[in-house]
Amino acid sequence: MNSKNIRLNLAYDGSRYHGWQRQNNALTIQETIEEKIEMMVCESVKLIASGRTDAGVHAVNQVCNFKTRSNIGPGAIKKGLNGLLPDDILIRDAEYVPFEFHARYSAKSKVYEYRILNQEDPDVFMRKYIWHIRTPLDLKVIAKCLGLLLGRNDFSSFRSSGSGNTDPVRSIMQAELHGTERGLLRVIIKADGFLRHMVRNIVGTVVEAGLGRISFNGFEKIFESRDRQSAGIKAPPQGLFLMEVQY
Amino acid sequence: MNSKNIRLNLAYDGSRYHGWQRQNNALTIQETIEEKIEMMVCESVKLIASGRTDAGVHAVNQVCNFKTRSNIGPGAIKKGLNGLLPDDILIRDAEYVPFEFHARYSAKSKVYEYRILNQEDPDVFMRKYIWHIRTPLDLKVIAKCLGLLLGRNDFSSFRSSGSGNTDPVRSIMQAELHGTERGLLRVIIKADGFLRHMVRNIVGTVVEAGLGRISFNGFEKIFESRDRQSAGIKAPPQGLFLMEVQY
Repeated sequence: MNSKNIRLNLAYDGSRYHGWQRQNNALTIQETIEEKIEMMVCESVKLIASGRTDAGVHAVNQVCNFKTRSNIGPGAIKKGLNGLLPDDILIRDAEYVPFEFHARYSAKSKVYEYRILNQEDPDVFMRKYIWHIRTPLDLKVIAKCLGLLLGRNDFSSFRSSGSGNTDPVRSIMQAELHGTERGLLRVIIKADGFLRHMVRNIVGTVVEAGLGRISFNGFEKIFESRDRQSAGIKAPPQGLFLMEVQY
Repeated sequence: MNSKNIRLNLAYDGSRYHGWQRQNNALTIQETIEEKIEMMVCESVKLIASGRTDAGVHAVNQVCNFKTRSNIGPGAIKKGLNGLLPDDILIRDAEYVPFEFHARYSAKSKVYEYRILNQEDPDVFMRKYIWHIRTPLDLKVIAKCLGLLLGRNDFSSFRSSGSGNTDPVRSIMQAELHGTERGLLRVIIKADGFLRHMVRNIVGTVVEAGLGRISFNGFEKIFESRDRQSAGIKAPPQGLFLMEVQY
């Protein structure tokens, strides 16, 4: 029996879910999609994502793959899943990929975006998609701190506990602050891989610099200390978006 | 005892509510806010809005007022309410107004905006704030139909039943289609008053014209017929936003 490998590109609003990874007694995105695939292909499948996203975190473009002996083609998989899935998960694309393609191990880099609303009033329509910060932020110091992260470095200072003993060295190719009209700020970080809560820990710490609680030199010392205890707060999940995965 | 009149400007995400107006056994925006005001002023109040919004309809700027004998000033009312209210309702502003100010009767005109996402794929993040239409719309015919509505006219064709015997004549000062990048269309309508479901009935009918199901001449006949039965479908509530009320 010939087994096939199918890649899915998808978007989801993470608000209702306890993150990507299957858990007991909590609704997850992996479980929600696996169930619908299994309804279509009539066998059990294991859906592999480029990486987990935490509870409340969103994806504009997540990539995953699964193997199946079913003859249902990718076009029908896409249409069928979009008919079966709730409206906060969207399959953007489905295609056959070589058998050795692995959404996690084959990924070369990923781009995350963190959205901050920096204005007096909160926004009732964006509340599930931003971190609202009332106090005006010093955008120059935030951009300067982000610039420090570029290149190949040890990111132990921005790694949450529970991430095991994996190598804390990662390469950041892009770390930028984009400010647009009406107080919407976007922190964009591209790296060859991310440690647990790395983006949220970085954003929480640069925001503390933007609030004047940490100086640029202080930020430099935190980064060099390789000690999570010395860093700033962890930014809340709802501002974080997985934007793209490169293979 | 001197009674005061307080005006509130507010925004709300209508997704969770059964509209503005207090109902038995259903959560409404009026009831939610009245309860919190009553907690603050320690007397029962009646909150009057510029107009009701239906279940699922949003407000970027709604105006309402209430009378109270309390000495708590507008600044404290605003802060207190924003602390007590859920995060899908925001008091933007509170101020004392002359005793005769009535949010509904004093209103001179209102602006509504209806948002349509006209592209192949739905959008998981905008799903509660747009009407997703997959088929490409003919924007020229929609703009032409909207232009026909300008001026003082009988809008019986776009009035839903259950609106009583009120005069169906209204003056539309603005009726425009704004198309932006990425398939987001906005229909903006300003009038001295609106009949029941008037914007949604207009939008549903011009969309049918945009889909080629109704010709421009057909639309003209519907408008002149003063018969709701002849018009198109009613657009769904989640694309509708009350944008502004003029006094």
